[in-house]
Amino acid sequence: MSTKGLDHVAIAVKDLDVAVKYYVEVLGFPPPEIEVVADQKVTTAIFGHGMGRIELICPTDPNGSVAKFLDKRGEGLHHICVEVSDIVGTLAALKAKGAQLIDETPKIGAGGAKIAFVHPKGAHGVLTELRQGEPSKH
Amino acid sequence: MSTKGLDHVAIAVKDLDVAVKYYVEVLGFPPPEIEVVADQKVTTAIFGHGMGRIELICPTDPNGSVAKFLDKRGEGLHHICVEVSDIVGTLAALKAKGAQLIDETPKIGAGGAKIAFVHPKGAHGVLTELRQGEPSKH
Repeated sequence: MSTKGLDHVAIAVKDLDVAVKYYVEVLGFPPPEIEVVADQKVTTAIFGHGMGRIELICPTDPNGSVAKFLDKRGEGLHHICVEVSDIVGTLAALKAKGAQLIDETPKIGAGGAKIAFVHPKGAHGVLTELRQGEPSKH
Repeated sequence: MSTKGLDHVAIAVKDLDVAVKYYVEVLGFPPPEIEVVADQKVTTAIFGHGMGRIELICPTDPNGSVAKFLDKRGEGLHHICVEVSDIVGTLAALKAKGAQLIDETPKIGAGGAKIAFVHPKGAHGVLTELRQGEPSKH
């Protein structure tokens, strides 16, 4: 098993426009790429290209998991995404350790990549998205 | 103002050895660089090089802020660090917006970089370290 490292860190926000304005005007990021991810019930604003991007995620559905996160905790760091070389093998290794998996098998995410989420309880407190796929276009 | 993007994301852990083992053996990261950051009262394990690193942080002092974070919330995502081109200007812009600053003026961090922390209340729920300096050696 090997990893290319951190694909992105995701931050849950209540108002995408307001948060984007902060990242652009105060922190100095170039304008982000906006993308609706219907499966996750969020709109994302993606800052940066290649590895180590920052993604703001904002709910499109009050019953989605990100909306519930915001109701419970407020805005804040939500998950990390790690690019792995063998997502099926990584999930098997996690399961063998007794880690709690949200997705037992990979789903197809943006750009055709395979993705799967690992529960924070199985990943030292961090909701972790595993990703195996072609390099993101972002 | 401009930014080079995400320098690192920091994750608070209770037992550095156990967490490092997970990142190396399960996720497939090469062994990290270990560094004691006396000022922050933590030992860090740094995965990756250049931008977008993952840093595990583990308290060295039960009275430090990371120890208190762990007591209150348990292990999890702790902060992001953004590399900015003008840390003094960014702090001034934050102050003008009424953001709550933990450091009103920059301190000198690892490698001689200027660093300052912004309170989550001023940064859409994310404890944010601003950094201006030479590229990290990591």
